[in-house]
Amino acid sequence: MEEKAVQDYYPDEFAHCYGCGHLNQDGLKIKSYWDGEECVCHYTPGPYYTGGIPGYAYGGLIASLIDCHAAATASAGTLHNEGYSPEEKPLSRFVAASLKVDYLKPTPIGTTLELRGKIKEIKGRKVTVKVTLSAEGEICAEGEEILVQMKEK
Amino acid sequence: MEEKAVQDYYPDEFAHCYGCGHLNQDGLKIKSYWDGEECVCHYTPGPYYTGGIPGYAYGGLIASLIDCHAAATASAGTLHNEGYSPEEKPLSRFVAASLKVDYLKPTPIGTTLELRGKIKEIKGRKVTVKVTLSAEGEICAEGEEILVQMKEK
Repeated sequence: MEEKAVQDYYPDEFAHCYGCGHLNQDGLKIKSYWDGEECVCHYTPGPYYTGGIPGYAYGGLIASLIDCHAAATASAGTLHNEGYSPEEKPLSRFVAASLKVDYLKPTPIGTTLELRGKIKEIKGRKVTVKVTLSAEGEICAEGEEILVQMKEK
Repeated sequence: MEEKAVQDYYPDEFAHCYGCGHLNQDGLKIKSYWDGEECVCHYTPGPYYTGGIPGYAYGGLIASLIDCHAAATASAGTLHNEGYSPEEKPLSRFVAASLKVDYLKPTPIGTTLELRGKIKEIKGRKVTVKVTLSAEGEICAEGEEILVQMKEK
């Protein structure tokens, strides 16, 4: 696993995302790490991040984590497929076209969540990423995001 | 349009949702109002709620707004279908089984977003809700959420 997170390689102009921008002081600042053939993120929600049911995490937060982690997976994964590391070549940035989240079981709050992302398909500039979100070793949610690679200026 | 929001009728036990719980002091506290045959919500994201691209709203926030507004639409809409208002009968609470968001165009930040939710289908305890999210009169995102009615204790 690399020491520097995928998001730390995002250029400053695109580093203000509420979910994962390292320059957004109010945001979640999630960090994703490329690890072999997949991308991994650990995040521990604060106690205020409950959903409607006491003791469980907010569905919107789960969607947010999956959204940002899928974007990081697309950025790092496409570069990895080309045979480069982010030190060797700048990451491409991706924007979400669609996001689907299946809430399989309630996600407990007060524990660290683990997200694992994998590239499912690449078609030109369009990349489909699958993400699982686990708590205490059990998959609580699954996500699939379709992202489109932004054109370089 | 009613003066009291759908979320104001949620029992205190279920009113701590980060997105829409009126008792969550750290949350978004979105408010949805039943209006004829649909449910409407207005929300103005703070400037920190940008996504990766400067000037546009965070996709995770859009998913969060759709998630909570769909739950309010399911609660208020099923009661409306039974011919009751929330003053006459307690709202049922719903949990999300799956959420799909299509990001049709970038959603500008710095303006009020309008969400409109409608019940698409009811099958037993399972309700499907469609939501549109508009900015400045244009639909920027569409959501579809499948929710399951919680059993009463």
